[in-house]
Amino acid sequence: MTRIFNDPAEFAEDQFAGFLDLYADRLRGVPGGAVALRTGEPQVAVIVGGGSGHYPAFAGLVGGGFATGAVVGNVFTSPSAAQVYSVAKAAHQGRGVVLTFGNYAGDNMNFGIAAERLRKEGIDTRIVVVTDDVASAAEEDKRRGIAGDFSVFKVLGAAAAAGLDVDGVERAGRAANAATRTIGVAFSGCTMPGAGRPLFTVPHGQLGLGLGIHGEPGIRDQAMPPAAELAQLLVASLLEAAPQGAGRRVAPILNGLGTTKYEELFLLWGTVAQLLREAGLKVVDAEVGELVTSLDMGGVSLTLMWLDDELETFWTADAYTPAFRKQRAPIAAAAGYVQDADGGVRETRAIPEASPAAVVLAGTALSALESMAASLHANEARLGEIDAVAGDGDHGRGMVKGIDAALAAARTAYDGGAGAAYVLQSAGQSWAEHAGGTSGVLWGAALEAAGLSLTDRKADYTDGDFVAAVQAFSGAILDLGRATVGDKTLVDALLPFAGELADGVEQGHPFADAWRAAAGVAVEQAEATASLRPRLGRARPLAEKSIGTPDAGATSFGLLVRDLAGLRSGTLAS
Amino acid sequence: MTRIFNDPAEFAEDQFAGFLDLYADRLRGVPGGAVALRTGEPQVAVIVGGGSGHYPAFAGLVGGGFATGAVVGNVFTSPSAAQVYSVAKAAHQGRGVVLTFGNYAGDNMNFGIAAERLRKEGIDTRIVVVTDDVASAAEEDKRRGIAGDFSVFKVLGAAAAAGLDVDGVERAGRAANAATRTIGVAFSGCTMPGAGRPLFTVPHGQLGLGLGIHGEPGIRDQAMPPAAELAQLLVASLLEAAPQGAGRRVAPILNGLGTTKYEELFLLWGTVAQLLREAGLKVVDAEVGELVTSLDMGGVSLTLMWLDDELETFWTADAYTPAFRKQRAPIAAAAGYVQDADGGVRETRAIPEASPAAVVLAGTALSALESMAASLHANEARLGEIDAVAGDGDHGRGMVKGIDAALAAARTAYDGGAGAAYVLQSAGQSWAEHAGGTSGVLWGAALEAAGLSLTDRKADYTDGDFVAAVQAFSGAILDLGRATVGDKTLVDALLPFAGELADGVEQGHPFADAWRAAAGVAVEQAEATASLRPRLGRARPLAEKSIGTPDAGATSFGLLVRDLAGLRSGTLAS
Repeated sequence: MTRIFNDPAEFAEDQFAGFLDLYADRLRGVPGGAVALRTGEPQVAVIVGGGSGHYPAFAGLVGGGFATGAVVGNVFTSPSAAQVYSVAKAAHQGRGVVLTFGNYAGDNMNFGIAAERLRKEGIDTRIVVVTDDVASAAEEDKRRGIAGDFSVFKVLGAAAAAGLDVDGVERAGRAANAATRTIGVAFSGCTMPGAGRPLFTVPHGQLGLGLGIHGEPGIRDQAMPPAAELAQLLVASLLEAAPQGAGRRVAPILNGLGTTKYEELFLLWGTVAQLLREAGLKVVDAEVGELVTSLDMGGVSLTLMWLDDELETFWTADAYTPAFRKQRAPIAAAAGYVQDADGGVRETRAIPEASPAAVVLAGTALSALESMAASLHANEARLGEIDAVAGDGDHGRGMVKGIDAALAAARTAYDGGAGAAYVLQSAGQSWAEHAGGTSGVLWGAALEAAGLSLTDRKADYTDGDFVAAVQAFSGAILDLGRATVGDKTLVDALLPFAGELADGVEQGHPFADAWRAAAGVAVEQAEATASLRPRLGRARPLAEKSIGTPDAGATSFGLLVRDLAGLRSGTLAS
Repeated sequence: MTRIFNDPAEFAEDQFAGFLDLYADRLRGVPGGAVALRTGEPQVAVIVGGGSGHYPAFAGLVGGGFATGAVVGNVFTSPSAAQVYSVAKAAHQGRGVVLTFGNYAGDNMNFGIAAERLRKEGIDTRIVVVTDDVASAAEEDKRRGIAGDFSVFKVLGAAAAAGLDVDGVERAGRAANAATRTIGVAFSGCTMPGAGRPLFTVPHGQLGLGLGIHGEPGIRDQAMPPAAELAQLLVASLLEAAPQGAGRRVAPILNGLGTTKYEELFLLWGTVAQLLREAGLKVVDAEVGELVTSLDMGGVSLTLMWLDDELETFWTADAYTPAFRKQRAPIAAAAGYVQDADGGVRETRAIPEASPAAVVLAGTALSALESMAASLHANEARLGEIDAVAGDGDHGRGMVKGIDAALAAARTAYDGGAGAAYVLQSAGQSWAEHAGGTSGVLWGAALEAAGLSLTDRKADYTDGDFVAAVQAFSGAILDLGRATVGDKTLVDALLPFAGELADGVEQGHPFADAWRAAAGVAVEQAEATASLRPRLGRARPLAEKSIGTPDAGATSFGLLVRDLAGLRSGTLAS
């Protein structure tokens, strides 16, 4: 929801005052909006505008190579004719004015009245209305203007900066609009400043196809599909609505509406780009990001502008505004770069020879890793919740990533005839590489150390070898993590476990029994960490919040050794 | 929440693949991350990194003048040592490496292991850890790294691009970190891809002070204050924690965490900038926007880097990356601009002389506008809800903005001795200017027309004059809006009202009685619009959704004329 404001009724004015303060070195405020400080020869003034709540549209697009001025209305409301007139007058450089905006009744009326008034004063004033939203009407001239505003404004701004006269700028803008199509989807509504609830909602797990940028509800709701299907829905909708005589070059915009974030847009772009290429289209300077938003609305839109040579020139031209900056020079310089030889690729090692006993033990190690994978998948959510109390909630996810990678590497090694030492080393390296994070590096190093402590040449393995492997595991964690008992970490369960196991084996208990007893101690000690204050790591600043909840790393350790004890009796003792 | 993904476990990889596709002209993917295509002389390689979910951090910062490479971990998880090593090897240009990242246990470990491995291979590798979060620890070196990552990385990247050797780059980076402080607040949690609920929550109406960028809960919750107080909280927290010997120049970052949008950040910046200036600080190239995010988290952070000459040089240097592009040249060119004379300022008119009867009637007009203001304020939410069914939900807000502006202008005119004609004209002009939107321009023009139809010179006003004023009001709306009865607009209530009023007065009924009867008809007809399909304006594409709900403009008109009928008997007939 929209949370930062003083008087909600003054939201549009207050945010604009802050914006003008920030960009005072390149824009000036005038009654009704903002005008770019002039940097070159006089040009046609391109005045964009509409309501607030759509940043970067519209004031964020004022600057060299883009809009000359922006009229800034209230949130989701057309500016008044007086505002349009005022901004156009201040921006006019003696070469005429193009007013451009999305197709809404209020904007048509207010910009229209202002145009009449400007013309009465002898200023040659043209209007280019953006009508890109294919979901809003079948007739092209009745469609609303949404993210295609950006495409059309960009072309108008570049044409004006290139020195075209008002006829030429208007013609380029109309060509851009005729070549531009957008389809949008909404995932969740937006909240007007000060409102207690959203302007509209989309049912959970659904998307609204054909959203407007003022929260107008979609024309159809459907279940939220995976990203790849969403990409197909968007691309197919636009290809069906392609303009007559469309060529093979397109300038795409994959636009986030507000709360749909960069990473989600990039993920979606991966499939969109592929689908466009499969359709035989050449992608020219795609823009993926937040360009025409709707406050804190969830959703995306895909825009395609089909390019001819003139539109491509204006689309790819340099620009410098608060929200959009583009330069061809650095990219061109990079294109001349000769790629380094990849230095970062790991060497592939041949699997070392293993004794029959080592290969049998490798099967046991693989079973153990499978048991661990099952335990961690079953407990991923719970571990995440425990970690979220005073940490960042990634423990369950990280452990699952790690064990999955470890298990895959272990299987590959086992299938290649490796012994237990090599299987565990491979598993550990893969865990560390794929899981990342503190737990990833600790578990990875510990498994690798356990593997190294065994060798794959022995004719037989004793309980003492397994105790030594557990001690190597434990030693790696102590070395790397530098935690001691009582710091509220994995070590609080690990050290008592290792000690109990060693004692049991020394006292002559069968390995499986000693393990089961040690696992019971580990679970107990993990639970007991609930009363501790963390002294290390990212939970430390949140020490107070952590009291009453056990440490996530100790908990997962206890869980794993307990479940390993449940493996077919004797398995762990080979 | 995070909605766009295929397999949630592959979110980080999938989004990164889309990112690399998008920026293939300037970056190349290597195992573990991305490296900038080289454009100039060999330089020290600055490798940034950390988990995914923070875009633009970290891959969005790779490019000329900024990071040489970025290591990309899983969501909110440190990358592995193998990833760090791989990216650093690929980015190394023979002049050494600086690894830089926020202070978290996993990152320290993984980057540390990679540094050891690089050094063993003879690559001079330095580490600069960012520790800017003043809320995370009292001891400076124990603090977490949050949005100050951006400040420190920018300095490192500029120093490397300027050709400094690895000693010089490391020194500049350490100086930047020592000079940088951040405080953050959270308004709402973020959702990991595929998770059913947020990683954490902030109680409604509260903020969590001291958030981390992985959703670590704040160290204190407090009530969400107005924007001006929030600015004070942020600025005061940093000024208290200023580094020893801090100068008077600061580079601020006001950073949005994800769902806190541009306009909110600009609004907050307005007060932050003022407070910094009041504290005697000079603001140098402030950045306001989303620079270090946390998926879809709500919240902001304020970072200050206190500048000396060297830090200022590196902070203000040009850069060109996917997410951050800065050029001094266009700004410098604009600074040479000579400002136009403002053309858009309205002329101030002297209030024309008015007859005593016109002044009395002006008082009535003022009472009528006050009644309208009370009605609209009381019904703002309801009108918004009606409008939201098939429109954009702004009708209530727009009408309130309009009447408030109209009433203020009318009071000024009345206090200046104006007659009713001038009072209504002023009110109408002010309504249109401040409300914007379709209803704003229609109501503004209609009130202005009603005023114009009266004159302020008459010795007496008759019921016929008032009927004529209502007809002028109605005529303006028909002219501008081009709607007819049955289009589901304001006109469906307005025309029957105007007809009934004229008939009643013609039949000799007292004006107040005729008005009351006409108002009854207007309310009826407004309600009857529920069964109509819209034929004009932005509700048209959503025609089906609109059936069953009356038109918002007709509803507000009915409401206003009904409440005006309740004014003290005879008032409307003067």
